[in-house]
Amino acid sequence: MLQIIGSIGAVSAGLDLGKEGPLVHIGSCIASLLGQGGPDNHRIKWRWLRYFNNDRDRRDLITCGAASGVCAAFRAPVGGVLFALEEVATWWRSALLWRTFFSTAIVVMVLRTFIEICNAGGCGLFGKGGLIMFDVSTVTVTYHMMDIIPVVVIGIIGGVLGSLYNFFLHKILRLYNLINQKGKVHKLLLSLSVSLFTSACLYGLPFLVECTPCDSSLAESVCPTNEGSGNFKQFNCPDGHYNDLATLLLATNDDAVRNIFSTTTSAEYHPISLLIFFALYCILGLFTFGIAVPTGLFLPIILMGSAYGRMLGIAMKSYTNIDQGLFAVLGAASLMAGSMRMTVSLCVIFLELTNNLLLLPITMIVLLIAKTVGDSFNPSIYEIILHLKGLPFLDAHPEPWMRNLTVGELADAKLPVVTLRGIETVERIVEVLRNTTHNGFPVIDDGVVPPVGLAVGATEVHGLILRAHLVHVLKKKWFQREKRRTEEWEVREKFTWVELAEREGKIEEVAVTSEEMEMYVDLHPLTNTTPYTVMESMSVAKAMVLFRQLGLRHLLIVPKYEAAGVPPVVGILTRQDLIAYNILNAFPHLTKPTSREKGN
Amino acid sequence: MLQIIGSIGAVSAGLDLGKEGPLVHIGSCIASLLGQGGPDNHRIKWRWLRYFNNDRDRRDLITCGAASGVCAAFRAPVGGVLFALEEVATWWRSALLWRTFFSTAIVVMVLRTFIEICNAGGCGLFGKGGLIMFDVSTVTVTYHMMDIIPVVVIGIIGGVLGSLYNFFLHKILRLYNLINQKGKVHKLLLSLSVSLFTSACLYGLPFLVECTPCDSSLAESVCPTNEGSGNFKQFNCPDGHYNDLATLLLATNDDAVRNIFSTTTSAEYHPISLLIFFALYCILGLFTFGIAVPTGLFLPIILMGSAYGRMLGIAMKSYTNIDQGLFAVLGAASLMAGSMRMTVSLCVIFLELTNNLLLLPITMIVLLIAKTVGDSFNPSIYEIILHLKGLPFLDAHPEPWMRNLTVGELADAKLPVVTLRGIETVERIVEVLRNTTHNGFPVIDDGVVPPVGLAVGATEVHGLILRAHLVHVLKKKWFQREKRRTEEWEVREKFTWVELAEREGKIEEVAVTSEEMEMYVDLHPLTNTTPYTVMESMSVAKAMVLFRQLGLRHLLIVPKYEAAGVPPVVGILTRQDLIAYNILNAFPHLTKPTSREKGN
Repeated sequence: MLQIIGSIGAVSAGLDLGKEGPLVHIGSCIASLLGQGGPDNHRIKWRWLRYFNNDRDRRDLITCGAASGVCAAFRAPVGGVLFALEEVATWWRSALLWRTFFSTAIVVMVLRTFIEICNAGGCGLFGKGGLIMFDVSTVTVTYHMMDIIPVVVIGIIGGVLGSLYNFFLHKILRLYNLINQKGKVHKLLLSLSVSLFTSACLYGLPFLVECTPCDSSLAESVCPTNEGSGNFKQFNCPDGHYNDLATLLLATNDDAVRNIFSTTTSAEYHPISLLIFFALYCILGLFTFGIAVPTGLFLPIILMGSAYGRMLGIAMKSYTNIDQGLFAVLGAASLMAGSMRMTVSLCVIFLELTNNLLLLPITMIVLLIAKTVGDSFNPSIYEIILHLKGLPFLDAHPEPWMRNLTVGELADAKLPVVTLRGIETVERIVEVLRNTTHNGFPVIDDGVVPPVGLAVGATEVHGLILRAHLVHVLKKKWFQREKRRTEEWEVREKFTWVELAEREGKIEEVAVTSEEMEMYVDLHPLTNTTPYTVMESMSVAKAMVLFRQLGLRHLLIVPKYEAAGVPPVVGILTRQDLIAYNILNAFPHLTKPTSREKGN
Repeated sequence: MLQIIGSIGAVSAGLDLGKEGPLVHIGSCIASLLGQGGPDNHRIKWRWLRYFNNDRDRRDLITCGAASGVCAAFRAPVGGVLFALEEVATWWRSALLWRTFFSTAIVVMVLRTFIEICNAGGCGLFGKGGLIMFDVSTVTVTYHMMDIIPVVVIGIIGGVLGSLYNFFLHKILRLYNLINQKGKVHKLLLSLSVSLFTSACLYGLPFLVECTPCDSSLAESVCPTNEGSGNFKQFNCPDGHYNDLATLLLATNDDAVRNIFSTTTSAEYHPISLLIFFALYCILGLFTFGIAVPTGLFLPIILMGSAYGRMLGIAMKSYTNIDQGLFAVLGAASLMAGSMRMTVSLCVIFLELTNNLLLLPITMIVLLIAKTVGDSFNPSIYEIILHLKGLPFLDAHPEPWMRNLTVGELADAKLPVVTLRGIETVERIVEVLRNTTHNGFPVIDDGVVPPVGLAVGATEVHGLILRAHLVHVLKKKWFQREKRRTEEWEVREKFTWVELAEREGKIEEVAVTSEEMEMYVDLHPLTNTTPYTVMESMSVAKAMVLFRQLGLRHLLIVPKYEAAGVPPVVGILTRQDLIAYNILNAFPHLTKPTSREKGN
């Protein structure tokens, strides 16, 4: 199963090298499709895939898909696993660690095979650079105690720049949302104008800078060149000269990174060219993300960061011995951490991209400083995008005002909880399903014959039944004329577990005759008899930890008081309720605090 | 805070290089001590450290300490983080990721500084090899599709050998437990005999093998040598010859690994020498762990594995182009995974030890195969040792029979739950504390004035109070003559939060006069009003997930039935109850299944 995702992810790497956004997306989409048993509409649903059609496996598969995507984009298998762990998964369990590891191992095997097959050069640009994309392992990294100062400076500036990038991207994405809502023509025009602007800049800007004479120590075949890849592009320059801005702009992004990371080329780039490059990529990076085109975040940020790092390296030349290429690497790392706020995964991705283990200690420090500085300004770019898109993603950290709200109060603010009896009439089930949108209902039995020692007439919380199962019952017409408890074999005969794991089915598709309406359904065998519960006095913040750590969808709220008139279940809390803006809708007097107040 | 742990961990690395067991231990011990505010007995308790004296911070600190230990032992900062994540922490939260990362970053900085200071050679063997201990980055790794076969073979054999190692170590540790219980003299004699045996073998065995003439292409200063480190030891051989077994045995373990990993020395080691080395280390590795001496698991297993890998490399010479040094690396990885069953962390540790990124794809495959093969035989070495030591470690995976037992049944088998009232007499509190060993008690109010709409005389579950807090109350004599609810400022005045975070204090140390016995205590303000709850019908397996994912200590069991005569809390479940052998004591008819039945 995982192999399949892995392999497809790796093959798609061949199509679109270095765009991590689309690749992560493709990986997750394939995984999600497989988790649903194949696409619905084209009759290519595979029967055996239905075994994965349940919430947990689907979520695991999507996590593996995202890890495979990162792995395929950066040829960074361990980095992919850690990216999935640190950024993607809201719910982590130990088995997921080796499962994602397994899928990235397969991806890297497939990649390695294709690189070997493509060694002859028949696959275009694919496979360039081998398994390590931006190799800087040949540099001897020499740094001393005093070099800690430039490293700290890189980290701080990177953190500030990263959070500025987040700030402006937020504004532009909100603008784009307005434009995109106006219709397809606007969407297309937006994309068109951005791509025209990009082309004009990429071709026009190199004319602004002066040509630089080639270093006489370089062979003529190396400088200048007009090849697709390589340093020292000739462009508009006379023989023996090269255009340094063209070297950066008129190459694939991968090549641009390789050129700007290249060490021992300290005189190659003029600070003005780097500044133009940096400013251009800031603008393009901001305006390109969000148009109707699959774009990534990683590579623009790496390019911006490396240009900034190299400029800083030139400025600090007299203070430090660290190579400018390494400054570029550190600059890229700092901007990534400043914007994405990851630590371990970025560190490993950078290690796997650059293959220089000796750089690890300073990379770690840069990442930590940039993350800390960035966190003091605004949330990470992923949180911003998730929030803007309105995706129901449960935040890792509860908002501070959630501590002052109990789940009981939250449940009171919602519509009253709808409960079903263990043996319920069809009419009531249809009515409940038609009039509510809840996905789960508590099943409560009145006046049951209780275990020994209790008064007759006890109320029993039998558990929680899912909407999907109720729809299944109606579809299969699993009705009976009299009120009676069913036997287990009856249920097993009627429903396979594959059917019960499916979450589809709409009440609108169900037709029930008026005669059937008066019949009964025994809900007991289809009820989850051990739902998770919380007491009504628990704070929303604490309940949120429960949702996040256990990967829950529903939580029954049990009363704190026990007395006549208190129902055994006072409410139901769903994952959806806990997404911050949903609570804000229910409690408009609670204002969203600034991110600075946000506890960690 | 974290820096301190980091730095101390790194300094201790200077004392005892390459012994990961003691280092992880030292790191964790320091962290635990700091978490307790310093050692108790020597009056060096620091006041400000008391802020960390709570369960959560202590646990986090110990995790950071263990990560720092691995980092210091192998100079593997990311590997240390992942080791803590994969093997150490029972409870993981996202903030822990960058915290462990931070402490390992500090460790690696301190290490780097010391290596620079020691560069002149004034620190003995410390700092040899720089930040990368067993560098094999100079080898060009060339492998093709067909090389997958030897790689799979390494993995399978490694998995089998690793689980065999676990099996025998289990037997020997049980034997040692019997010997060690007999007293200190037996303990000492055991350690003495093992160390005598080790010395005899290390010195005697090299005489058994024949001398090998030096390769004429090597300089005379390289082969033979009598230096402390380096390949080609002369030992008992005439000039121009070297003793290959002495090269491996009469060096530090670090040097031995470097020698056996060394590539381009394909003819250096005779298969018989390798076989003797492998057999010796199997025996020593089994017999040394468990004696009263701080020993590690990593290095013996790496040495065993690399010897086995190199032998396999010699055997497969005609089928594959992979260098014998790389075979040794892969052999070490396979045996580690076969015994310790980690994947991602071992992969990163190996990457950081050997600094060869191109080896990553095959390392990943070897690790996954070895882990899978090993898992089909027995649990990991860490689980075996934890089980043998009887440490209360909550397993990651519930045993299958836990699914057939509800928490209600488990609570019934225990002593009946002891509840306290919100305003309780001192006498009752003292009695309860003296007669039970429970660490938490539900606080239940009878006949409270309930919120609007409920009948008078409701029962309220107020929450859970900890034994430590009750002892604090008794110690501070926070009593009152009449039954009344206290105000919040009264509590704040009496107890600081630092005091309340402390978990110490014994009931035996408390003296209460008979007059005080008749006074009252208001427990409300000291009660945790939002304890986690489960319904009695939940399976123990499901409750265990809750304990593990939320890092709980107590869980209130609420009834499924609501009727007159049903208490609002039917039991209390503790972490201790869930440790497998405790349940087995309570339910002797449940037999522990073999590991093969264990679900994943």
